[in-house]
Amino acid sequence: METKYDDINLKALFIGDKSENGDFYKEVLNELIDDHLGWRKNYMPQDLPEISLDDQNEVTFIKTQNRMKTVLQEVSSRLRTHSVPWHSAGRYWGHMNSETLMPALLAYKFAMLWNGNNVAYESSPATSQMEEEVGHDFATLMGFKNGWGHIVADGSIANLEGLWYARNIKSLPLALKTVLPETVSGKSDWELLNMSLDDVLGILKQNVNSIDNIKAESARSGKHLNKLGKWLIPQTKHYSWMKAADIIGIGTDQVEQVPVDNNYRLDVLELERIIRDLTSKKIPILGVVAVVGSTEEGAVDEVYKIVELRNKLIQEGIYFYIHVDAAYAGYARSIILDEENNPIPYEDLKNKYEKYNVFVNKEQLVSKSVYESLLAIKDVESVTIDPHKMGYIPYSAGGIVIRDTFMREVISYFATYVFEKGADIPALLGAYMLEGSKAGATAASVWTAHRVLPLNVTGYGKLIGASMQGAKNFYNFLNGLEIKVGNTTVSVLPLINPDFNMVDYVFKVKGETSLEKTNWLNNEFYKMSSFASGSLYQNGFITSHTDFAVPDYGNSPLDYVKNKLGFTEDEWNKVQKVTILRACVLTPYMNNAERFKLYAAEIKNIFKERLERILNH
Amino acid sequence: METKYDDINLKALFIGDKSENGDFYKEVLNELIDDHLGWRKNYMPQDLPEISLDDQNEVTFIKTQNRMKTVLQEVSSRLRTHSVPWHSAGRYWGHMNSETLMPALLAYKFAMLWNGNNVAYESSPATSQMEEEVGHDFATLMGFKNGWGHIVADGSIANLEGLWYARNIKSLPLALKTVLPETVSGKSDWELLNMSLDDVLGILKQNVNSIDNIKAESARSGKHLNKLGKWLIPQTKHYSWMKAADIIGIGTDQVEQVPVDNNYRLDVLELERIIRDLTSKKIPILGVVAVVGSTEEGAVDEVYKIVELRNKLIQEGIYFYIHVDAAYAGYARSIILDEENNPIPYEDLKNKYEKYNVFVNKEQLVSKSVYESLLAIKDVESVTIDPHKMGYIPYSAGGIVIRDTFMREVISYFATYVFEKGADIPALLGAYMLEGSKAGATAASVWTAHRVLPLNVTGYGKLIGASMQGAKNFYNFLNGLEIKVGNTTVSVLPLINPDFNMVDYVFKVKGETSLEKTNWLNNEFYKMSSFASGSLYQNGFITSHTDFAVPDYGNSPLDYVKNKLGFTEDEWNKVQKVTILRACVLTPYMNNAERFKLYAAEIKNIFKERLERILNH
Repeated sequence: METKYDDINLKALFIGDKSENGDFYKEVLNELIDDHLGWRKNYMPQDLPEISLDDQNEVTFIKTQNRMKTVLQEVSSRLRTHSVPWHSAGRYWGHMNSETLMPALLAYKFAMLWNGNNVAYESSPATSQMEEEVGHDFATLMGFKNGWGHIVADGSIANLEGLWYARNIKSLPLALKTVLPETVSGKSDWELLNMSLDDVLGILKQNVNSIDNIKAESARSGKHLNKLGKWLIPQTKHYSWMKAADIIGIGTDQVEQVPVDNNYRLDVLELERIIRDLTSKKIPILGVVAVVGSTEEGAVDEVYKIVELRNKLIQEGIYFYIHVDAAYAGYARSIILDEENNPIPYEDLKNKYEKYNVFVNKEQLVSKSVYESLLAIKDVESVTIDPHKMGYIPYSAGGIVIRDTFMREVISYFATYVFEKGADIPALLGAYMLEGSKAGATAASVWTAHRVLPLNVTGYGKLIGASMQGAKNFYNFLNGLEIKVGNTTVSVLPLINPDFNMVDYVFKVKGETSLEKTNWLNNEFYKMSSFASGSLYQNGFITSHTDFAVPDYGNSPLDYVKNKLGFTEDEWNKVQKVTILRACVLTPYMNNAERFKLYAAEIKNIFKERLERILNH
Repeated sequence: METKYDDINLKALFIGDKSENGDFYKEVLNELIDDHLGWRKNYMPQDLPEISLDDQNEVTFIKTQNRMKTVLQEVSSRLRTHSVPWHSAGRYWGHMNSETLMPALLAYKFAMLWNGNNVAYESSPATSQMEEEVGHDFATLMGFKNGWGHIVADGSIANLEGLWYARNIKSLPLALKTVLPETVSGKSDWELLNMSLDDVLGILKQNVNSIDNIKAESARSGKHLNKLGKWLIPQTKHYSWMKAADIIGIGTDQVEQVPVDNNYRLDVLELERIIRDLTSKKIPILGVVAVVGSTEEGAVDEVYKIVELRNKLIQEGIYFYIHVDAAYAGYARSIILDEENNPIPYEDLKNKYEKYNVFVNKEQLVSKSVYESLLAIKDVESVTIDPHKMGYIPYSAGGIVIRDTFMREVISYFATYVFEKGADIPALLGAYMLEGSKAGATAASVWTAHRVLPLNVTGYGKLIGASMQGAKNFYNFLNGLEIKVGNTTVSVLPLINPDFNMVDYVFKVKGETSLEKTNWLNNEFYKMSSFASGSLYQNGFITSHTDFAVPDYGNSPLDYVKNKLGFTEDEWNKVQKVTILRACVLTPYMNNAERFKLYAAEIKNIFKERLERILNH
């Protein structure tokens, strides 16, 4: 299938905030279901149905149907009462969620009727093939020429799998020293622990018959775990990294935090200082995590600087694995790829975006730093990417991508005849991943979305552009906004000009000197704007919140607290925490400035009304 | 909702092998979708639609719709060409799959429109509550009075989480020795490593304010990993256990295999011998895995004997964690529970089964050993159970259950304000599990199935009875079957009288003395009966296969190879492998003996035709 099509209309791809495309959705879904029902009926048509017309008229049959319907009525009631209206075009400004892509929903619902299990090709020929193709989509998206990837349950599992790769690969040279000492002769243990991925894989590729023996002496056996060194993560650490270090057995003690700068990006100068300090004590660096889209700030770490640093340190005999946690913003790399999936030179972005109507108001919202960071992902070892975040795919669909397909030999297990080693089928997936059984429907869902929306500027790039522009509109609306509440003025103060599509902000009463009271104000506002105030179905503005506190952030919030919010350093030292309101902007509709204005007016009224209730309390 | 209903008609619960209930399925699905579409439309009705009628008439809009339809046509074509007809009433006799429950499909498809994420209550109030209730369903099913459980991606992840529990809990006494030495004063390290779960949790419960400090000194930090001892698994080890030991950092070297007996159950005498041998060398036992439903044989390990052994060894100062891997057969415990979810005395089973029509031909197929083993699960620490296996739920839906809710404090992580510690909401799920984001739809799906089919003899027990009886019918058909191929007679020789619903068998030419040729014959037969021969849509009998080979099985197949197949011990020692055909019988229709006979006649013809093609080759 090669439908070239260069003016995708995003509005055709969603059910719609007011179910505008509901009829189309039902029509296509029913056609697909009929395809399936006909398939069942026509498999071995000589077999008569097991469920006869008489069966269907039995009292027990009808009662069982009614029982089913009754339970589903309760499901419907519960979901309609207690769900989050992500689908709203302009009233949901909170967590990383929104409407999901109609083609992804349709493909999932269709494929699940077959219940394929992608753990093994035998259980899912159609959807295993699709997952293999999705894996190559991921690799192409990341710029990995010989890469591979697959779908995982979620970003936490993908991060864990990335750390599993890093841990086992780091230990291989020590295993080589035991099993094939001639391949690493003359190297000290320190040199072994600083061998590059390419060097290690090079030796393995030349000794494929010894791989099982080598692996048996690697970290998988339980050996060397305490020699592999430190795992460095940004200070704004996602809790999934602590959990991953715990589970993988290196332990949380081996996790080292690197401070973030005022833009909440990993501070690469600090990173270099920490690496030099550790290595001067002969503590190796297991690896470094760069975050592309931090959970709380949407910050994009400067991957290109981390890659540069590695290139520099290699000259000094220091090597570390790089894993990019792009669970959140991985799909954003599509915005820098052209029609052929090649990187667009930075200076050509504007023209390309005009051609494909990526930013409807002709702005160019991709900063040089974000561009360079997305580009540099091609030089790292592995990447987490979640289709269920910026892929607009329904939960659960995470993903992992590796730079060199051969890496997977390091973590593989072959179960007797579940996966025939060397069998001529596209993917022995179960042998090459952390999980076991998994829904073929997820692969169908992601595959379909990738075929409808190519992973470049013509497809996903355009959707992500709409989301970034929506965030920019929201940021511009908040920035400098002042709300009169009686004689009081409340200012809205955004945290940073967003790297991507997340807008963090704080309400502050003008002249207020207490950070604690300000935190209270924002927390009260959050409660009114979340499930904590009751059914969300009655709630006209919904947001999420977070706390930047010293244990996790050190003093990185100080710049904001002092220079933007205007509190004293003493006040920060006393309270050690600032409560932030947080909007991840996924809605595909709010790039339309005219439409946004209508919602902005509503939101401003709601701000005013809620602030009045809080301040007059 | 408390609909008491004691004559569930299983035929009303599936779409049907010939789509007999297809219209009902579509009708209910469309009603549910309309519920959702109306909900979207009526959230803030003052907001006008973002997608206008003019938008919908644009050329780009229609072209985008067509593009979507075209991609979905390819999805439909691929799935219809390359899928497995699990839904067939009597022609699929292979992997652990079949039709799935219609209520589970409907609830999933409905709930996914809301795209709830059960990692946090805030993102999924309705479905988080459902998952909490499902967790309590699981605990009740296992007989855990203070237990808890949750849904996981699959059995491999649940096993990994079980091992994570075991590893961290085993290390806690060593942490207590550092943090709160007075709580374990006078105990040697050996005694610390043999403290029972209840004793360890007892100390924690009395020192809740110190838990974070204690955990920081436990295995999660990377400490003590090499002191925790051996993880014992049945010799027929599922590869997921080697993978789990690798990932969790204790290492595959710490996995010890326990031989299985002639029924492919863990040999408890051997287990005792191995434990005594290890402990006499002061090597602790981290834990023992009992398998309830082995992947290749459907064997149910004698859990009650393992629990008895533990009770005996506690007297000698030896304690080990028990994890039951009931990924496959966990739901079968419902067949021994009465209407109030209490165990039915063994001697009353027959009457109860007659009352609820569990085995339609009035047989009682639950052996005393299987009964006692299912019953004894209440005394173990944790259990893996997969709704997507005997729960008849679509992939991916695994599960884990723990005996004491407090256990989860040992593995918990609290991310700043993703999960507010102590917040008054039903489940802080994300803090208490290995995974992160997960589909709320899965919880809705499992919840709905559990409400339609109670987890006792009136509901799931009946469905599982149908599956067991189908297996028994298939076993009786194969056992003693002889097929004439020219002058040759081919016998069909089942492996064992199944514990549960799996039938393994081998074709053997009468008088054949070569095991290698027999393996070849069965492998050729498998190829003709699987995707290896081309599209399964044209294939009238489908099965799966496995190899029992010495590296995994030791000599446990010898009894079968010698006494049933009639090969010499020399022949076994030479070939060291027997190829087995394997039928996991999930179809809910083949408990009907009359209907099965029709399929049996077809299958016999296909056997004959395929054997002719192979032997006349």
